[in-house]
Amino acid sequence: MAATTSSSSSSSGNRNPELRKDTVSNRWVIFSPARAKRPSEFKSSSPAVSDQQLNQRCPFCIGNEHQCAPEIFRVPPDNPDWTVRVIQNLYPALSRDLPARPANNLPGSVLDGFGFHDVIIETPVHSVQLLDLSPHDIAQVFLAHTKRIHQLAAHHSIKYVQVFKNHGASAGASMSHSHSQMLALPVIPPNVSARLGNMKDYFEKTAKCCVCEIQHEDLLIDTSDNFFSMVPYAATFPFEIWIVPRHHSAHFHELDAEKAVDLGRLLKLMLTKMSLQLNNPPFNFMIHTSPLHSNASELAYTHWFLQIVPQLTLTAGFELATGCHINPVFPEDAAKVLREVNVPESA
Amino acid sequence: MAATTSSSSSSSGNRNPELRKDTVSNRWVIFSPARAKRPSEFKSSSPAVSDQQLNQRCPFCIGNEHQCAPEIFRVPPDNPDWTVRVIQNLYPALSRDLPARPANNLPGSVLDGFGFHDVIIETPVHSVQLLDLSPHDIAQVFLAHTKRIHQLAAHHSIKYVQVFKNHGASAGASMSHSHSQMLALPVIPPNVSARLGNMKDYFEKTAKCCVCEIQHEDLLIDTSDNFFSMVPYAATFPFEIWIVPRHHSAHFHELDAEKAVDLGRLLKLMLTKMSLQLNNPPFNFMIHTSPLHSNASELAYTHWFLQIVPQLTLTAGFELATGCHINPVFPEDAAKVLREVNVPESA
Repeated sequence: MAATTSSSSSSSGNRNPELRKDTVSNRWVIFSPARAKRPSEFKSSSPAVSDQQLNQRCPFCIGNEHQCAPEIFRVPPDNPDWTVRVIQNLYPALSRDLPARPANNLPGSVLDGFGFHDVIIETPVHSVQLLDLSPHDIAQVFLAHTKRIHQLAAHHSIKYVQVFKNHGASAGASMSHSHSQMLALPVIPPNVSARLGNMKDYFEKTAKCCVCEIQHEDLLIDTSDNFFSMVPYAATFPFEIWIVPRHHSAHFHELDAEKAVDLGRLLKLMLTKMSLQLNNPPFNFMIHTSPLHSNASELAYTHWFLQIVPQLTLTAGFELATGCHINPVFPEDAAKVLREVNVPESA
Repeated sequence: MAATTSSSSSSSGNRNPELRKDTVSNRWVIFSPARAKRPSEFKSSSPAVSDQQLNQRCPFCIGNEHQCAPEIFRVPPDNPDWTVRVIQNLYPALSRDLPARPANNLPGSVLDGFGFHDVIIETPVHSVQLLDLSPHDIAQVFLAHTKRIHQLAAHHSIKYVQVFKNHGASAGASMSHSHSQMLALPVIPPNVSARLGNMKDYFEKTAKCCVCEIQHEDLLIDTSDNFFSMVPYAATFPFEIWIVPRHHSAHFHELDAEKAVDLGRLLKLMLTKMSLQLNNPPFNFMIHTSPLHSNASELAYTHWFLQIVPQLTLTAGFELATGCHINPVFPEDAAKVLREVNVPESA
């Protein structure tokens, strides 16, 4: 029952449950094959279908810019034939312009809800999804993220910027037109603090960045010049994928144009494989980066990565209560399935 | 922008966003009224409807006991006319009987998936939901939980028992027949460790239990002889409800028969109000208690409570990434709505 790092190889088949913990999250995950279908049979029961909604009624479509909240910038600049637009969220979770907060007499800590909540429209065309774009066009989306983060970094009260994408209604997307979002926060969020703490602990023990050390052949899916994709050792969700820079890099927003195209190529491949293998599931992706104003020692032990989570399972009472997740698919089995997906030339 | 505890009263109306943190969770929650309907208009769009499935096809129905995994005990004992049955889960997340784990060569910590995953069938009748039961019958369910926890406490490798209920398919219930579950774990789960740490910090600063201090008239919903119900100051989810013992008590499984009936009465009232106000939403409830083998100092600062979460919002990329939740309903507004729900005599 003691925690161990074991040393010889095994394959899937009839496996017993295991609890695993990896270095980055430092959280136990329950791997429970008794609750699983065969990994190759995992499919989304509610694929994220584009609704082919009429262009005229979607504010994110080209020509309907006047229906949106104010634009922050577009790519290319000042061009009516834009490919990417960054706009304010019409229903922002945080406010960029706050009058004084009315006082209340409730117990506990409170902060004004100051921050920025922006939307990145990834394509002018309603029926196009992110995986349909070319690597070069996906790169334009990432470069719009990084440009906006550089702008937000000028606000000293902004501590962290979270970039994320919700694809499909059950993954939280209220608009079907392809878009991602970013929230600029006045606090370091709890999962980020926890991740930084774990990375720091590893660095203090080993003098190495734990993400630089994370690659393992049994968990690897694909590689590119500057990135690799993998299933994490203690994946929280079935078929969770990480795309990781090969070379140490603390901040996503330092991504350059060449690496952005390479990242676009690998993200396109991962989304295509996921769509083929898992029946176009709703998904989220999240970019995990370092706080804006990190000091030199934090930069040494933090390493950004992009996490993709297909929505195949429900978070229910046990997960809500404990923060411990039950994953029916062993990561090495998910990695093998994703490595072997046959992607047609046309995809 | 600094965290403050402010001091005069306010009401709802057009509110600005706020970030709040309470003592128990120690996590920031974003309250974002711009994204909300009026609190009184919140309804579930997918109510948890009982499917009126035929008795003959449901293994949890009386008469179909042979279709279930082995029984652990029933109430009353040895009686074919049982009211509550505790059985093994047919698809357990953890295994109560493990052969040696095959070794693997992957990096990271691993534990055998030893533990217990039990199901509590709350009524013999398919069409009856928990809120339809009398306070006395709900008490029998809680007393079945506590009896089973006492049995599980005999296993020294079991550190924590999580009791939870998933009601409705989108809240994770795979069977519509009313039931709850318990998972006995070989580790203290991360949210529990975090909660204990926060409670300990508060106790060291104030020499008081933070849950003993939590009651506040603006957040209160209802009271009974031994419990009160409230919306927490920094509720993670809209209309989240806590039922809290009035007197300090670390362990749920020390609940006696008289208090169990009183708890049954208050839980029935909260589920009835939630069903009337929020259109019978899918929900989860979770019992947050202390680890089985707590020492005297831990018993002094930990205080159990029952958390009810109606499923009205989706957890999407931002919440997954940051662990920070966006709640569109201020807790004092939710508490006011729930205080004022008119429950008919017949309910």
